[in-house]
Amino acid sequence: MTSESVSPSAAHFDPLIPPDGEAREQAQARQLLLTKPAGSLGRLEELSVWAAACQGECPPHVFARPRVVVFAGDHGIARSGVSAYPPEVTAQMVANFRDGGAAVNVLASLAGAGVRVVDLAVDADTDPSVSAHKIRRSSGSIDREDALTHEETLRAIAAGRAIADEEVDAGADLLIAGEMGIGNTTPATVLIAALTDTEPVAAVGRGTGIDDAGWIRKTAAIRDALRRARPHVRDAVGLLRTVSGADLAAMAGFLAQATVRRTPVIIDGLVVTASALVAEELAPGAREWWVAGHRSTEPAHTIALRRLGLDPILGLDMRLGEGSGAVAALPVLQGAVATLARMATFGQAGVSNNTEPKSEPAESD
Amino acid sequence: MTSESVSPSAAHFDPLIPPDGEAREQAQARQLLLTKPAGSLGRLEELSVWAAACQGECPPHVFARPRVVVFAGDHGIARSGVSAYPPEVTAQMVANFRDGGAAVNVLASLAGAGVRVVDLAVDADTDPSVSAHKIRRSSGSIDREDALTHEETLRAIAAGRAIADEEVDAGADLLIAGEMGIGNTTPATVLIAALTDTEPVAAVGRGTGIDDAGWIRKTAAIRDALRRARPHVRDAVGLLRTVSGADLAAMAGFLAQATVRRTPVIIDGLVVTASALVAEELAPGAREWWVAGHRSTEPAHTIALRRLGLDPILGLDMRLGEGSGAVAALPVLQGAVATLARMATFGQAGVSNNTEPKSEPAESD
Repeated sequence: MTSESVSPSAAHFDPLIPPDGEAREQAQARQLLLTKPAGSLGRLEELSVWAAACQGECPPHVFARPRVVVFAGDHGIARSGVSAYPPEVTAQMVANFRDGGAAVNVLASLAGAGVRVVDLAVDADTDPSVSAHKIRRSSGSIDREDALTHEETLRAIAAGRAIADEEVDAGADLLIAGEMGIGNTTPATVLIAALTDTEPVAAVGRGTGIDDAGWIRKTAAIRDALRRARPHVRDAVGLLRTVSGADLAAMAGFLAQATVRRTPVIIDGLVVTASALVAEELAPGAREWWVAGHRSTEPAHTIALRRLGLDPILGLDMRLGEGSGAVAALPVLQGAVATLARMATFGQAGVSNNTEPKSEPAESD
Repeated sequence: MTSESVSPSAAHFDPLIPPDGEAREQAQARQLLLTKPAGSLGRLEELSVWAAACQGECPPHVFARPRVVVFAGDHGIARSGVSAYPPEVTAQMVANFRDGGAAVNVLASLAGAGVRVVDLAVDADTDPSVSAHKIRRSSGSIDREDALTHEETLRAIAAGRAIADEEVDAGADLLIAGEMGIGNTTPATVLIAALTDTEPVAAVGRGTGIDDAGWIRKTAAIRDALRRARPHVRDAVGLLRTVSGADLAAMAGFLAQATVRRTPVIIDGLVVTASALVAEELAPGAREWWVAGHRSTEPAHTIALRRLGLDPILGLDMRLGEGSGAVAALPVLQGAVATLARMATFGQAGVSNNTEPKSEPAESD
């Protein structure tokens, strides 16, 4: 479906450069000069310091070009009754993203972010505007066969890298990965269970809303897939090949490459966080470039966030995917950055501080 | 300090009209038609339904003119070492709000909300642009004397009502009360402890950041004030007179009047929520017009939220006041409204739903 060439080094990422320690320290120091009690903005202060470190400057700037990329793909396992929706919904929703009608479009528009949808493995012919990086149609049914071939896996990772490069080259200064694919919480849960050594029953959620019988089918499929995954837990490419799909593999490449390009990311829900766990394997330290947008109702999401050491911004019981939880958190992050960048200091405003700093660093604004 | 006349009925509020039940039902029905699994936007759906009910129409509109009013006042109790900051900071911060340098200004600007600061009881002469509703300078030290006279209390409530009317008449469709006043978490904690029958040690927090010795002084002051407050727990005006301050009394009037004017409110942190508890006494049912923006680190805040039945949108460990937590939550609320108003329905987008509705109501857009 694609003529993209694949290099055997597609899954190799050079050691990452962490966010800027000097900008982080300047941001921490500046927080103490702003007209508010130290620490009183709570996690907004922590987010602002992280943003300054990622941007490598203090004061940081409100992100000017946040971009959401929705990775779409179908999954062979969806034929086994693990989802409440039929597989054709994936292609229908791809059109909905293009037309701006989905939740992530509405939330992104309000938050000043652009949305792009890419078809990696939709089981239908989609518009050329979204299919340039398509790897294949659907994936193998991971309870009994590999999701992808080795070559498809490398091509998917390379596609994700290329998409990250395209976005950063076009000026994106903050990235959000989203996803759409009927059945995709099943491979996501398998990846998380495999990488965190979690039993299926502790990890399996109801996705978009399956009933009890569906949950039992899903748990059985995850148990079978997990058995196939376990030999590969030390081999990220092997794991992606065995139990992911081209969409999840591409997201892993995208998330790893974003950090290579020193571009911060807001991580979304279960499926994106599963790919993020793999990206952290591909490019150790990548998580320092990430914040978690929200905590979904899926149990495996919390397990994955804990492993990554990420404490989500929002806890609104969302479970939609698409990047919607990350985009919902975007304005909170922007607000955090704005306070650090734009609030008056005690000196500027002539407000008495309770702690007299020995000397106030020169202000740049 | 003001020539405002006070009517003995200043604290009387006519029975409230609750948010619109028909619009609520239409909103709940519309949520099921949008291109997402039912319930998958979690609390965003609940917020959107509440907004539609408050606006009395479905689909609702993204709030066009949200307004923050910061109620400033000093407190006699602040002379007893209950705060980490000296009282003169209140007047300095009033100037900072006017100049746009405070956290709430920065967050509101980013979220498209206007900010107004009103001096109810600052212990200094302030600019005429903010002092039109001023009741007095500071308040009595509530551990041993009444905060206000009966007449001052009524005038403060009337001032809050007038401010709400001014804002709604000028087009505000969503209100946020904020506050600034060194020492104001002490009367706020007393009000909450009195109205929820809570022991001081379970309610007292560290405000903007007092040390252990300060916490002990604050707890002692709250215990003494609470003893003075208890005889008045069934009399909102008496309670405000005894242990609040003109700023808190005005906020109670403001919050009650906002609901009389059928204007929804995002409730902020400890001090605003204390006034909200009193407003619910003045105008029972007012809380149906409110959502809570955030959960602050102050223990009494959680106690008051529980009493009001409000589950906050954000939990970011903020403890600044000013309305900052409510304003930080504003974009999340707007996002919730936007999804209900602007997402495509299954029918519009040609997406298969897993539940076939018997008949799809006519769409207005």
